[in-house]
Amino acid sequence: MDKQQMTDLIVTAKAKRGLTWEKMGEDLGMSPVWLASACLGMNGAPPEKAMAITEYLGLDQGVARALEAFPTKIWDQTVPTDPLIYRFYEIAGVYGTTLKEVIQEKFGDGIMSAIDFTMEVDKQEDPKGDRVVVTMNGKFLPYKHW
Amino acid sequence: MDKQQMTDLIVTAKAKRGLTWEKMGEDLGMSPVWLASACLGMNGAPPEKAMAITEYLGLDQGVARALEAFPTKIWDQTVPTDPLIYRFYEIAGVYGTTLKEVIQEKFGDGIMSAIDFTMEVDKQEDPKGDRVVVTMNGKFLPYKHW
Amino acid sequence: MDKQQMTDLIVTAKAKRGLTWEKMGEDLGMSPVWLASACLGMNGAPPEKAMAITEYLGLDQGVARALEAFPTKIWDQTVPTDPLIYRFYEIAGVYGTTLKEVIQEKFGDGIMSAIDFTMEVDKQEDPKGDRVVVTMNGKFLPYKHW
Amino acid sequence: MDKQQMTDLIVTAKAKRGLTWEKMGEDLGMSPVWLASACLGMNGAPPEKAMAITEYLGLDQGVARALEAFPTKIWDQTVPTDPLIYRFYEIAGVYGTTLKEVIQEKFGDGIMSAIDFTMEVDKQEDPKGDRVVVTMNGKFLPYKHW
Amino acid sequence: MDKQQMTDLIVTAKAKRGLTWEKMGEDLGMSPVWLASACLGMNGAPPEKAMAITEYLGLDQGVARALEAFPTKIWDQTVPTDPLIYRFYEIAGVYGTTLKEVIQEKFGDGIMSAIDFTMEVDKQEDPKGDRVVVTMNGKFLPYKHW
Amino acid sequence: MDKQQMTDLIVTAKAKRGLTWEKMGEDLGMSPVWLASACLGMNGAPPEKAMAITEYLGLDQGVARALEAFPTKIWDQTVPTDPLIYRFYEIAGVYGTTLKEVIQEKFGDGIMSAIDFTMEVDKQEDPKGDRVVVTMNGKFLPYKHW
Amino acid sequence: MDKQQMTDLIVTAKAKRGLTWEKMGEDLGMSPVWLASACLGMNGAPPEKAMAITEYLGLDQGVARALEAFPTKIWDQTVPTDPLIYRFYEIAGVYGTTLKEVIQEKFGDGIMSAIDFTMEVDKQEDPKGDRVVVTMNGKFLPYKHW
Amino acid sequence: MDKQQMTDLIVTAKAKRGLTWEKMGEDLGMSPVWLASACLGMNGAPPEKAMAITEYLGLDQGVARALEAFPTKIWDQTVPTDPLIYRFYEIAGVYGTTLKEVIQEKFGDGIMSAIDFTMEVDKQEDPKGDRVVVTMNGKFLPYKHW
Amino acid sequence: MDKQQMTDLIVTAKAKRGLTWEKMGEDLGMSPVWLASACLGMNGAPPEKAMAITEYLGLDQGVARALEAFPTKIWDQTVPTDPLIYRFYEIAGVYGTTLKEVIQEKFGDGIMSAIDFTMEVDKQEDPKGDRVVVTMNGKFLPYKHW
Amino acid sequence: MDKQQMTDLIVTAKAKRGLTWEKMGEDLGMSPVWLASACLGMNGAPPEKAMAITEYLGLDQGVARALEAFPTKIWDQTVPTDPLIYRFYEIAGVYGTTLKEVIQEKFGDGIMSAIDFTMEVDKQEDPKGDRVVVTMNGKFLPYKHW
Repeated sequence: MDKQQMTDLIVTAKAKRGLTWEKMGEDLGMSPVWLASACLGMNGAPPEKAMAITEYLGLDQGVARALEAFPTKIWDQTVPTDPLIYRFYEIAGVYGTTLKEVIQEKFGDGIMSAIDFTMEVDKQEDPKGDRVVVTMNGKFLPYKHW
Repeated sequence: MDKQQMTDLIVTAKAKRGLTWEKMGEDLGMSPVWLASACLGMNGAPPEKAMAITEYLGLDQGVARALEAFPTKIWDQTVPTDPLIYRFYEIAGVYGTTLKEVIQEKFGDGIMSAIDFTMEVDKQEDPKGDRVVVTMNGKFLPYKHW
Repeated sequence: MDKQQMTDLIVTAKAKRGLTWEKMGEDLGMSPVWLASACLGMNGAPPEKAMAITEYLGLDQGVARALEAFPTKIWDQTVPTDPLIYRFYEIAGVYGTTLKEVIQEKFGDGIMSAIDFTMEVDKQEDPKGDRVVVTMNGKFLPYKHW
Repeated sequence: MDKQQMTDLIVTAKAKRGLTWEKMGEDLGMSPVWLASACLGMNGAPPEKAMAITEYLGLDQGVARALEAFPTKIWDQTVPTDPLIYRFYEIAGVYGTTLKEVIQEKFGDGIMSAIDFTMEVDKQEDPKGDRVVVTMNGKFLPYKHW
Repeated sequence: MDKQQMTDLIVTAKAKRGLTWEKMGEDLGMSPVWLASACLGMNGAPPEKAMAITEYLGLDQGVARALEAFPTKIWDQTVPTDPLIYRFYEIAGVYGTTLKEVIQEKFGDGIMSAIDFTMEVDKQEDPKGDRVVVTMNGKFLPYKHW
Repeated sequence: MDKQQMTDLIVTAKAKRGLTWEKMGEDLGMSPVWLASACLGMNGAPPEKAMAITEYLGLDQGVARALEAFPTKIWDQTVPTDPLIYRFYEIAGVYGTTLKEVIQEKFGDGIMSAIDFTMEVDKQEDPKGDRVVVTMNGKFLPYKHW
Repeated sequence: MDKQQMTDLIVTAKAKRGLTWEKMGEDLGMSPVWLASACLGMNGAPPEKAMAITEYLGLDQGVARALEAFPTKIWDQTVPTDPLIYRFYEIAGVYGTTLKEVIQEKFGDGIMSAIDFTMEVDKQEDPKGDRVVVTMNGKFLPYKHW
Repeated sequence: MDKQQMTDLIVTAKAKRGLTWEKMGEDLGMSPVWLASACLGMNGAPPEKAMAITEYLGLDQGVARALEAFPTKIWDQTVPTDPLIYRFYEIAGVYGTTLKEVIQEKFGDGIMSAIDFTMEVDKQEDPKGDRVVVTMNGKFLPYKHW
Repeated sequence: MDKQQMTDLIVTAKAKRGLTWEKMGEDLGMSPVWLASACLGMNGAPPEKAMAITEYLGLDQGVARALEAFPTKIWDQTVPTDPLIYRFYEIAGVYGTTLKEVIQEKFGDGIMSAIDFTMEVDKQEDPKGDRVVVTMNGKFLPYKHW
Repeated sequence: MDKQQMTDLIVTAKAKRGLTWEKMGEDLGMSPVWLASACLGMNGAPPEKAMAITEYLGLDQGVARALEAFPTKIWDQTVPTDPLIYRFYEIAGVYGTTLKEVIQEKFGDGIMSAIDFTMEVDKQEDPKGDRVVVTMNGKFLPYKHW
């Protein structure tokens, strides 16, 4: 079973049970963002989490094995076209040099890891229109000199 | 005076005074991220803020005018090469479909605005290595039907 | 049922009944442009509209479910080749800086939303050759400072 | 004098006089959109209009000559990055197939000309946020068979 | 039946009858170039021509319907690799600025339409090697000012 | 003197004398298309023609030397953006496979040379709008087998 | 039968018989390079050669027909990745301007044809490591002036 | 002195003396192809050859130093546009898989080196049109297994 | 059997036996890196190694034949997206000019072969986090002059 | 002083003193690879190292300041063309999936850091041709689950 088949089975089971990533994350004690990324095949799950997810959804061992597999992270569009995803590309473009200035001022020469990394998405209610709050948290990695 | 000349003057004045974006933001009552983006020419400043920034740095009216100008936001590299900036591109690639799932589950069919948008960068101290915390906050914009 | 299968079923039913988007839009009280975009899979339909469209065409619930699904908006050609579509790309290229000048002069620093957005297409009869009139209507979104 | 120098002189004179494209268009009896596109170098002006524009701004004959020159229309970015301009690219991407369906249904097999073409930008006031209205008007060109 | 299936049926029928585009065009009173482009799916045929073509080849109504359909004109290679086709790309590259100079000198600011357009291919016999003569004929479209 | 400087001198002299490529070609006994391409630097001129052109325009030997130089033919835009030039790119895209069919049917397996090649541009007056007629004439080159 | 199926049949028959292109070329009186290119679908074969090849390999008439078909020469990778093929791309890049200098010095302004063209590959034994000798032979085509 | 300045000085001196690469190569005992590539900055020259070249042309030590420098081999166009150079790109595309077949059949799994490599250009006189003969000679490098 | 089918069979057999590339390499006397690259289809195996691998895994002769086949090395992504692979692309970008300086200083004008090449991957244990050690070993190839 | 000016001064001083990166690294107690990368502007130097380098070369404080600056790491060529650098790109392409297999087998799901990273270049003498040995050493970063 490859990651695509795994995702299809999980998404179908989730829809049939009327679940959300939010609800699943809460019940399973996992972040909804990480959970979704693992179920969409963009992160691998450690065995106990893979088992918990598949048992929760009533899916079999094959799905757990596929969840555990280390994914090859591929995206086809150099510039994403879906408007929701493009806006994150736009933020990287518009604010890239700003992030470099501000992060390196605070931490020194180095980067924010995208691997030793977590992310949360929250809803901030607002009478003028609700707001999406995305919090990224990555380890600072200083450049070496040797 | 164009934005590039403006940035050069501001960065020089800031360095001469030993300032940081953090300190400047605090003194001026502005977010360091927004302040840096305006000074790097990727955001325009309203007149009173442009004035405050230039007075604070002892720069002349020409700089204030350039800060007020509405910028044309251009980046040359479709895929950024600087590692710090690339990691944000990578996050958009790896987590793009996840963000779509989680945001649209919470808010319905629509996107997070990158225009009605703010961002903060914080340092989270950690004995295993400090962590960079980036918080993005954008208005949810639902798609119309008509 | 995915969006592609949905589109095939709708287009077939529409052709069998000899309908146009114009006629369907009129009968259903929807804009022909929005209606076509939803049926082609580039917009999601709210449940009551999805139901109305499928009942009107004598299609089943599966099509309604597919119409409701939030679409991932993907186009394969960075530069479109079909001449009708290319001309809109050309307009964005030739008139992009002009639109920026004129819109920002009228509204301040910000953009026209392509999400909180509607569009109409009309025919203007003209003895020297009929004319296509495309009217785009998008909310102005001012940039934030924070 | 090339188009770039011409634009610089016009934009400087316009700013010194505190003019807008709107005001200039009204005074000169020209559409502000066309006027801006000619002054930005993306359209050529017929001699009498070139003369009127330069006299109005107090500029010399060299500017008029440059306005008359037939421009070579070049844009550097295959995918524009400025958010205001990108949104028009996005509209061409998201609604391209829809425009093809709706226009060809109304007019037959052919395209909307981007040459025999005019465009207007209007402001529609709205308590929930003003709206940008862009109206494109292009001659329908049917494909030939021979 | 889509355009690809239509092309396969036409090409097979044409080969079985030992026909050429030349001969077919002569018998049907159509230009061989237009006829080939319609049969290859890059132009739509008006109903009476679609009918004439299919009757001539002994094909059924489904092929006629497919010939009538308005094609979406897509080509996959930004730079074509087949040497015959590449040479036309090369001509556009080498002679593009020349064509602009010469056409606009003769006609004013505008373009040659590729829609209100016809093309012929002829053979010019020559003892030093026969020559291909391609004649393009497109309506001149002047730019508007408004 | 490089080709760019040569072009600038020729274009200036031509404008000062109020000449057209048409008129120059007639007076010099050269095709206006070839003449323009040589003066724009996309073709080299044999010494006697280079001499005739420069004498005609009252330019010096340096210009003649530059006209004689074998040009390196470079164009910067893989897909040209100027609408007049783009339409020729579009013709290569839309009609590429058709040209392959029709030319190879007439001549066998091979190509039309873009080197052993001439081109003319004519104006065909038409009450419904004048028409641009471009005639390309290239030697047929058959593929070898060996 | 398309070219891909033809190639599969030929390659299989060749392997079963333990043949090489070298041996086949010698037996059939054809250059191994041309023979391989025709069998791989990148050149068309005249009928008598197509017949000879298929009879030699014990294949049927369908294969001969496919060998005769005029190929559309397509390669998918703008920059080839296979190291053997890339090296030829590298030679075109590193030595392109050199070849232009040396060929045009010897022949005048023009090019080496890649159509009226033959190529041979030989092995030059060498105790320090055998050497590959590739000999390209193309007709010189002078640019026209007209 | 960088390679570009070096090339300019060499090319000027060569033209003033009415030399050809052919003649220079003969006099200096170097291949005209290698000599041209070194003088165009795409190969470095060993000190004694750099000295010989500069003395022959009456140029100073700075040119010799620049000739010795190890070049960074850069070409700007992924797909070359000059027709002479493009044809070599086309050969790599059309005959790439053929070269792979024929070379690996003769030599085993490996490649022809483009580094341990020499090339010659010859003229083959022919009443039907002279022919360009390019001979490439590269060491065969077998892949390792370890 | 093509390389993809071969890889699928090998990977399945390896997983069923609970093997690692490390263990297999040790048992077979081959480098795990080379072994993995051959089994993934990016290197060909000499017959005796192909036989040893398939016997070890209990696979049939067809797999051995596929292992022996000379691979066409293709990768689809010009810029790889998987983070592990991207980091090697990043190293080539960040350190490319440095490697050129240091290697050519040590060896003279030439390159490190990627064909006459071996590579090892080792684990260096470290209390602050284990480290990956990749050792590349390629023959130095000096440029020729001729 | 920007990084480019800094590099020019350092390279000139290094050449005048007849130094190598090897010798400089040894004298300064720094790795020649890191030292070269800092001097070429692709790494920042901590103040004491920046001071040591400039004193060693007899350069002033401005150079030290430029060495300390955090660099923006930019490379222009998506696919590098210089053969020495391209070979590292080729290794990433050919061996990318192999490195993923072997590293993740040894370390689990994660990557080798290119930031917490060092590299050495060594010469391995060999009668059949000296060999370049490049040793990369990067911290393993495991993916998080949260």
